[in-house]
Amino acid sequence: MGEETIRQARPGDVPMIVALLADDDVGAGRESPDDLAPYARAFALIDADPSEYLVVAEVDGEIVGTLQLSLLPGMSRRGGLRAQVEGVRIARSHRRLGLGETLLRWAVEEARARGCALIQLTTDKTRADARRFYDRLGFTPSHEGYKRQL
Amino acid sequence: MGEETIRQARPGDVPMIVALLADDDVGAGRESPDDLAPYARAFALIDADPSEYLVVAEVDGEIVGTLQLSLLPGMSRRGGLRAQVEGVRIARSHRRLGLGETLLRWAVEEARARGCALIQLTTDKTRADARRFYDRLGFTPSHEGYKRQL
Repeated sequence: MGEETIRQARPGDVPMIVALLADDDVGAGRESPDDLAPYARAFALIDADPSEYLVVAEVDGEIVGTLQLSLLPGMSRRGGLRAQVEGVRIARSHRRLGLGETLLRWAVEEARARGCALIQLTTDKTRADARRFYDRLGFTPSHEGYKRQL
Repeated sequence: MGEETIRQARPGDVPMIVALLADDDVGAGRESPDDLAPYARAFALIDADPSEYLVVAEVDGEIVGTLQLSLLPGMSRRGGLRAQVEGVRIARSHRRLGLGETLLRWAVEEARARGCALIQLTTDKTRADARRFYDRLGFTPSHEGYKRQL
């Protein structure tokens, strides 16, 4: 694998990020890569929010991974800042090469550098590989993750 | 039970909110109710952030419950806004009276009114009562909730 870079996403990256979100067994049915307008609106909200970081991983200039890191203020745990990871995706062509680990380690270091006391994420229970991955990275599956559609 | 009110938290509510966070089997060891300074700093961050809503539930003017609602922009699920609930606490004196349900139903309605496509939360797996509670409120435990201390 060539040289890896992790950088903040730019507006021009939206189509490739959406392609990554859609190229996923769990997420495919939830995405609409033929209509980018809602994603462009979401990108603008993220980009304007200093607590939100959408990043992409490039290998030799090609976008092959993404995740979103949020920094959330909260009262519990002595008012500690909480980091949250959402939307982790790696291109099928680049899975099992350690790129997910590089992205997650970046998120952990960034959260620590920004003073977070905790980093958290949820993963769909059907993603057996992802669960082994987070276990290996030192995350503890201590919580039940509940969702409700609105 | 007397009249219930749900309202946005004010700076003067911080000591009572911290008391609620500390009066909890899981959270007790994580809190420091004798040192309110970190909580006051966290309150100021939450209060200044238009995506964060810290609310309290009052019964006859006494604070007996709290939760935090966050509105998080994101790319996945067609760029849908995501609501997240953290720090749900009900005073021991007022548990099993339906107050938690009132607070969560408020959060669901607020999230819907603000255009969220999804509402999510995690609960410690040792909280068996909480799991039954969220199941009953229409939440699905579809995800594994991972945390890592930093």
